[in-house]
Amino acid sequence: MEQEGVTLEELKKKMADFAKERDWDQFHSPRNLLLALVGEVGELSEIFQWKGEVPRGLPGWEDGEKQHLGEELSDVLLYLVRLSDICGVDLGKAALRKMELNAIKYPVKLCKGSSKKHTQFNGDSGDNADKDQGH
Amino acid sequence: MEQEGVTLEELKKKMADFAKERDWDQFHSPRNLLLALVGEVGELSEIFQWKGEVPRGLPGWEDGEKQHLGEELSDVLLYLVRLSDICGVDLGKAALRKMELNAIKYPVKLCKGSSKKHTQFNGDSGDNADKDQGH
Amino acid sequence: MEQEGVTLEELKKKMADFAKERDWDQFHSPRNLLLALVGEVGELSEIFQWKGEVPRGLPGWEDGEKQHLGEELSDVLLYLVRLSDICGVDLGKAALRKMELNAIKYPVKLCKGSSKKHTQFNGDSGDNADKDQGH
Amino acid sequence: MEQEGVTLEELKKKMADFAKERDWDQFHSPRNLLLALVGEVGELSEIFQWKGEVPRGLPGWEDGEKQHLGEELSDVLLYLVRLSDICGVDLGKAALRKMELNAIKYPVKLCKGSSKKHTQFNGDSGDNADKDQGH
Repeated sequence: MEQEGVTLEELKKKMADFAKERDWDQFHSPRNLLLALVGEVGELSEIFQWKGEVPRGLPGWEDGEKQHLGEELSDVLLYLVRLSDICGVDLGKAALRKMELNAIKYPVKLCKGSSKKHTQFNGDSGDNADKDQGH
Repeated sequence: MEQEGVTLEELKKKMADFAKERDWDQFHSPRNLLLALVGEVGELSEIFQWKGEVPRGLPGWEDGEKQHLGEELSDVLLYLVRLSDICGVDLGKAALRKMELNAIKYPVKLCKGSSKKHTQFNGDSGDNADKDQGH
Repeated sequence: MEQEGVTLEELKKKMADFAKERDWDQFHSPRNLLLALVGEVGELSEIFQWKGEVPRGLPGWEDGEKQHLGEELSDVLLYLVRLSDICGVDLGKAALRKMELNAIKYPVKLCKGSSKKHTQFNGDSGDNADKDQGH
Repeated sequence: MEQEGVTLEELKKKMADFAKERDWDQFHSPRNLLLALVGEVGELSEIFQWKGEVPRGLPGWEDGEKQHLGEELSDVLLYLVRLSDICGVDLGKAALRKMELNAIKYPVKLCKGSSKKHTQFNGDSGDNADKDQGH
């Protein structure tokens, strides 16, 4: 079946070609890429840092600001795709599988309308419960 | 032309459905999602934190550890996809465009084999040069 | 003159002793500590991620949650202190110096009540202006 | 007893005065400051991102680079101090308390020379064990 849109595979190949052409494979170790990713997440955060709460759809943002946001979101994505590739992880497959796990972890019946942690649904009381991901 | 693999569009739809079914749209504001993304980047970093330099392909890592890595990479991706959607950014399109900009910013001839900042190629000397993204 | 309160020097010494007693110096390389710091910033973010805007003083937060917050803020601080020590940076001195630089960068007259970037006060138009730290 | 060095209390007061003089209290909400902190952690990471493993003491780094590092470490510290203040957390006290908790969590006898997670010492097997902080 035909699919529309940009695939993770396509971005992976483009990033690999881009690095190879510039002889940058030597710099693309897992931890170098991870720190570059953290750097981009920082730049993404800077866009939102002094704004207070921001409504969905970003009403009132200037075009230049939205474009800048698109660039920073992209930078995070591109390093994430590259890091996954260098680590030998099939990111698209892993993401689909994670969504299946999340569906089991957060059953609709139990967590509808609640942002509680999944450990609170399942009755866990481990000392790491509070470190668990949000809802 | 037919494309193989997972598209960003597909993940976007799945995430939107997932949130809607659980009545979680109310929690998915831009800054909430951004902080959730930062949380996942933290969990990704924890996997690498005590390892020293890690070679490409992660030789010697146990299967469970690789699987955990795939899950954390996915969590970052899924929140990034969701954040982009909520902000009205077409992430796939933006990423392709950013790669074109990067190709202009880092011409093969000038930066082959160098991790210097693009500002150093272009002769900039602004006081923010050192804050610019790596290569 | 006598000073009250906890000094950065004191925390530095305590962290160094703690690591030495456990033979952990071998793990405390700069990039290991940096990634550990990123992990802790992630945990700190998780506390705030589903809350929407939070008022100063955290009215309505439970004691346990406030205590958890204090622990995560501390974890970030302790890794920051340790990272600085391992890099040979006198963090207290550096912080005082940075505050002096900030006072020059953001003169009271020019930036009172504004969250604009300092590059906007000074008329910069470098392509990195938008990456600069907020105010 | 007299203490030497810079106290967290001193930095807190300086930051509060700095903000007040510029009428910036209005921007210093907890989540604004948290995102600013994340931005600074990103800038700190960028310094280390293409370097591969970096030895203690940073041999071979240029003076300008070390100074830049000191500034970024300071930026993280200053926002951390400010965030703690705005949240009503006594950061120095909390840090000392956290070190006491860490001493209990990681007894010298059990974890000497090991970077294993504390949950692995204590026999935990909760599903969040792998998300716990490193050693």
